[in-house]
Amino acid sequence: MERFAVIYRLSGSAQEVYDKAQDICLEQTVEFPGELLPPGLIQDHVVGRIEGLVPVGPSAYHATISFDLDTTANELTQLLNVVFGNISIKPGYRLEELRLPDSCLGRFRGPRFGRKGLREWVQVEQRPLLFTALKPMGLSARELADLAYRLALGGIDIIKDDHGLTDQVYAPFHERVPLCAEAVERANQETGQRSIYMANVTAPYGQVLERARFARKNGARGLLVAPGLVGFDTMKTLADDDRIGLPIIAHPAWLGSYVLSPEQGVSHYALLGQITRLAGADGSIYPNFGGRFSFSQEECQRIVQGTQVAMGRIKPIFPCPGGGMSISTIPDMIRVYGCDVAFLVGGGLFKHGPDIIENCRYFRSLVDDMESHWA
Amino acid sequence: MERFAVIYRLSGSAQEVYDKAQDICLEQTVEFPGELLPPGLIQDHVVGRIEGLVPVGPSAYHATISFDLDTTANELTQLLNVVFGNISIKPGYRLEELRLPDSCLGRFRGPRFGRKGLREWVQVEQRPLLFTALKPMGLSARELADLAYRLALGGIDIIKDDHGLTDQVYAPFHERVPLCAEAVERANQETGQRSIYMANVTAPYGQVLERARFARKNGARGLLVAPGLVGFDTMKTLADDDRIGLPIIAHPAWLGSYVLSPEQGVSHYALLGQITRLAGADGSIYPNFGGRFSFSQEECQRIVQGTQVAMGRIKPIFPCPGGGMSISTIPDMIRVYGCDVAFLVGGGLFKHGPDIIENCRYFRSLVDDMESHWA
Repeated sequence: MERFAVIYRLSGSAQEVYDKAQDICLEQTVEFPGELLPPGLIQDHVVGRIEGLVPVGPSAYHATISFDLDTTANELTQLLNVVFGNISIKPGYRLEELRLPDSCLGRFRGPRFGRKGLREWVQVEQRPLLFTALKPMGLSARELADLAYRLALGGIDIIKDDHGLTDQVYAPFHERVPLCAEAVERANQETGQRSIYMANVTAPYGQVLERARFARKNGARGLLVAPGLVGFDTMKTLADDDRIGLPIIAHPAWLGSYVLSPEQGVSHYALLGQITRLAGADGSIYPNFGGRFSFSQEECQRIVQGTQVAMGRIKPIFPCPGGGMSISTIPDMIRVYGCDVAFLVGGGLFKHGPDIIENCRYFRSLVDDMESHWA
Repeated sequence: MERFAVIYRLSGSAQEVYDKAQDICLEQTVEFPGELLPPGLIQDHVVGRIEGLVPVGPSAYHATISFDLDTTANELTQLLNVVFGNISIKPGYRLEELRLPDSCLGRFRGPRFGRKGLREWVQVEQRPLLFTALKPMGLSARELADLAYRLALGGIDIIKDDHGLTDQVYAPFHERVPLCAEAVERANQETGQRSIYMANVTAPYGQVLERARFARKNGARGLLVAPGLVGFDTMKTLADDDRIGLPIIAHPAWLGSYVLSPEQGVSHYALLGQITRLAGADGSIYPNFGGRFSFSQEECQRIVQGTQVAMGRIKPIFPCPGGGMSISTIPDMIRVYGCDVAFLVGGGLFKHGPDIIENCRYFRSLVDDMESHWA
């Protein structure tokens, strides 16, 4: 019987941490008094197993715990439940890292495109990708489409719906998506670029697949999903669906509470890197350091590591730092992130100057000027 | 244009809190520089509006912010996004309470059964409900069914799959569910009670509805769902589906990170009370105070308030305290919770003595003995 491992950060004294590790072994599997467990399969395999405890700081340890792969039923939902279901409710337990064997990873298709595939899709061989969002909410579908046209004309590679644009009366989904897709395609005819429009399909359960199929049929060349709102397996379902076959970028809305404490929750690396990738996203949006959110540079770099660490045949994906990035920081950011990154500049693109097309071109020129850093 | 309100707990000085409240107004709607917003609809309606700021402690305020109902597109997913999508990622913002007008609540069906309906369903007019879980994982479907039979014979009202039982090879879903449902029904023939078996349908996106329909067709009389794993709207979809028509109990797996900090995340009241109810659950499981988790008595009582506070036509639901409850605490718990509660005793039921049927009868006798406290 094969096992997979999870690394937790546990806080407390050595004895407290050992007790916490023991607790994980029971709580995440049998949820049953250890002394009453039937011998055999359950005691020997189903219960989690402590594989190691390593001190990582004052009153902090990394515990490696292994679980029988069969406990996950090969379901992403149940995998997440085993690794952090009940334990999420206890203070002082943090999920740091998944260590999945190839036999487990082989059951996940992961991102359909990955970094290489997304580069081919937007025909950008090497430089960082330029990424922005259609906003503000309240514009009509025609106004958003007009904006999409100008952003594409200015040379932005990926133009997504703002993550709050779903199906509001201001710009209903089925009206907005064809107009924006057409607008970007029209700009592509003029520029010769291959900019893409990504439709936000974060939606009620019964409408996610319908909207994704509609988007595909009506010219959208990618999908935006907030897995915190619809569930990680919903995103995976979109990624696995051959009739949809579009690149997907994950938005972290509603997921912030997992990563705000270093003592509990889920690490940036695991949540916005490994799990997002396992669930089929080709890019992972997160708030960049130095913007209007609070992630540190180190936390952002851990996300990058999660997007590219070897995970069987699961492809590496694009880190997409955003959240209050201004264009002027792009040169610094290229020094940090290098080439394999999609810079998500939203409001900052509008702030730079009155002409949005010129702002986009300036954004692009900053990236081009740094060629020596990414080429 | 109608608005709904949200109360946030914000930490910081008066000026910092005011800035945070302003930030919510923009961040949760237009996500755009305020000074560049077009006048009219967007500035006047789409952007959130500060309705009040009240100090509630040293460096802590409750901010009431209102939003245009149209920003939610009448979608539960987008409602959650507006109230806490991006803000979840910022430290020091906590969602305390939803204040939804009847016109908004009227668009949600909410729980199909509610407290009254669930009482009729299990034919228990007045006393607290007895609730337990089939475990440990690793037992075969036949062993779990045999256990279900004995638990029902002992007089437990609601017998659910442990939340970790999905479709493992140990006891596959399609084998387990008919066996457990039949076993409980057989016990009902002997006892004259109306115990119910609840099948866990926490599952990958494409299998949730199929499993729920299979469960209904094969005699399950209720569904267990972990909305943190599948998404709140998935649970709502199950509740709204007339072809399924079963009571639903929500499990908090994977949701703990929202409630562990008093300074950020989502309050117990809003998450495990209001939102769980809005999403169609007839009961909300949470770890009781004094058990193996860390919720305080006050936090548990706030959950109870969230399950019953007036919310238009949305029915009140059962609080289901569990998580390491031992039978011996039942009298104390009845003093705290009174009549309208479902006591979830899992492992503790096995610990009490060697005969599980006798343990169940003892559990029931403790409830009956306290009649003066709930009648």
